[in-house]
Amino acid sequence: MPEKSLILLVGGGAVGAVAALNLQLIEQAEVTVVCRSNYAVVSQDGYRIESCDHGNLSGWKAFAVLNHIPEASSSQPFDYIVCVTKNIADVPPSLADLIRPAVTPGRTVVVLIQNGLNIEKPLIQAFPQNIVLSGVSLIGANEPEPGHIVQDFPDTLYVGPFRNPNLKVEEEDAAAKQFVQLYSAGGKTQCSYIADVGWTRWRKLVYNACLNPICAITGLDTGRVRLADGAVEGLVKPAMKEIVAAAKASGYELPATVVDDMINMDPLTMYLPPSMLSDTRKGNFIEYENILGEPLREGEKLGVPMPTLRVLYHLCAAIQWKNKEVKGFVTVPPKGSSAE
Amino acid sequence: MPEKSLILLVGGGAVGAVAALNLQLIEQAEVTVVCRSNYAVVSQDGYRIESCDHGNLSGWKAFAVLNHIPEASSSQPFDYIVCVTKNIADVPPSLADLIRPAVTPGRTVVVLIQNGLNIEKPLIQAFPQNIVLSGVSLIGANEPEPGHIVQDFPDTLYVGPFRNPNLKVEEEDAAAKQFVQLYSAGGKTQCSYIADVGWTRWRKLVYNACLNPICAITGLDTGRVRLADGAVEGLVKPAMKEIVAAAKASGYELPATVVDDMINMDPLTMYLPPSMLSDTRKGNFIEYENILGEPLREGEKLGVPMPTLRVLYHLCAAIQWKNKEVKGFVTVPPKGSSAE
Repeated sequence: MPEKSLILLVGGGAVGAVAALNLQLIEQAEVTVVCRSNYAVVSQDGYRIESCDHGNLSGWKAFAVLNHIPEASSSQPFDYIVCVTKNIADVPPSLADLIRPAVTPGRTVVVLIQNGLNIEKPLIQAFPQNIVLSGVSLIGANEPEPGHIVQDFPDTLYVGPFRNPNLKVEEEDAAAKQFVQLYSAGGKTQCSYIADVGWTRWRKLVYNACLNPICAITGLDTGRVRLADGAVEGLVKPAMKEIVAAAKASGYELPATVVDDMINMDPLTMYLPPSMLSDTRKGNFIEYENILGEPLREGEKLGVPMPTLRVLYHLCAAIQWKNKEVKGFVTVPPKGSSAE
Repeated sequence: MPEKSLILLVGGGAVGAVAALNLQLIEQAEVTVVCRSNYAVVSQDGYRIESCDHGNLSGWKAFAVLNHIPEASSSQPFDYIVCVTKNIADVPPSLADLIRPAVTPGRTVVVLIQNGLNIEKPLIQAFPQNIVLSGVSLIGANEPEPGHIVQDFPDTLYVGPFRNPNLKVEEEDAAAKQFVQLYSAGGKTQCSYIADVGWTRWRKLVYNACLNPICAITGLDTGRVRLADGAVEGLVKPAMKEIVAAAKASGYELPATVVDDMINMDPLTMYLPPSMLSDTRKGNFIEYENILGEPLREGEKLGVPMPTLRVLYHLCAAIQWKNKEVKGFVTVPPKGSSAE
């Protein structure tokens, strides 16, 4: 191990910026952040951060800010690549292809602070000798303008090992615990080791696989979904119960109160948009395959009837396709042509 | 019977204008049209009509144009009230309340050229001594600007009697046939008497209850729905098969090809928006209760599983609610308030 852990943090949006700050603040880490849409602002002026965990900072910069994935150095390889991007499985490039240049086989630990199921599979396939860790974040943070980060709910991160069949379980566990230590070292954030990655992921899906698509499809925020005619009884509860049943079939018994807990999690009159609604409002792609498609496929494979999520899934796919046409990823035959 | 049939035609949009023209052109009818959004233009300059049935007309006016429902006259009552409005069952005023001033009990025949199921029930309840007729229209017509009507698919109307338990079947049948005669008198349009109102309505629902909401919810026209990833197999076909099953349970056996016929009805590269998509694009209310809610309730009452339409229905209800908030029909607690 070098004195400092060299960390590449991919995705310098709201959640990524707070994670970068939390890691850079300690002696043991040197953080390089890869930004996309906010690169110009962040590389020149740094971040302006208002954080319930870290206080207010102006002009804060990580060790380095890049607008591309760097090549791995043979003398100074990255110890960790922390991925905090949206995971849009159906739009290239894949996350594995994106980070490939920076990955040193057998060395770099990949940490996925992302939602959904089976997100580790393409990475383990692409990097069969590398450890991949699960990060489930309960932070509340947004970026009202590029480089301006507002964190209004504490950074709570659950880290555990995804299982790579090529590696030893003990090494994966140790790597997860080491990352927890690193992320906790500043003392300002809650980061816990959690051996059972699946339980945490399924639990978060009760919110994400249901409220996210329902809000994105209807255009209603989480407060209005609770007020709208029949939406909770007719859509939200049936969808959430399907996730609870699929989780159970997968071996994860969620608490009896989880459906009500998730429905009431956001204060009603805050009228908060879940991330997928924010994405559709901005015309961004939605990460529906990992947070909706994968649990649907898992559940149905195990014989769980999931009629509500199945319809929501296909509606999300149609909405994504519409956006792909807008962004030029698909083209349609010209109007009035006979091509079909 | 007076020499001329006095007809009040409620709803002077594209379909209504062509119906008014078709009736006014004959000797036996005098048509008063009630307009809403296009009243100013139509009352001053008349309609500009480009019609595949009737040719091109400029400045065409019916006998009278009104912007309100007139009071029934005791000396000259209306023989027919032909309703060609959208039927938004969940937004007041109801159609029965709207037309009530013009209805002469026991005399006026109400003709509903509208889609969906059970639309006659509130009218028979409101006017227990009046005949109510079903009109199912297969016209293609739109109004690109107020008062400018383009009819590009022939006016084909199926008319039959709704059953009013207070009246004699023979009288209802005779009234339907009489209206068919009137509507056919000009010789330029296809109007047929059809005894079995239900069959015609269920058949049209295979298109309307499925493609209408799927297009409105996703924002895709009927061509793009056929191109989008998995939308036909995952949404359109399952929904249509549920309607076919509900129709069968209700006693109406639809042809085996009806699903494919309806999917392929609109030429793909015309990229036609069904009416409900046009409505959501314009911010109008959608008539989802009659064309989706009623067949869903009918089918489920008869034990038909309708999981796809059930989700589409609740999504439509949520979208309608959102629009009700925009238009001031519902209000939500202020942001940040503790009222829940």
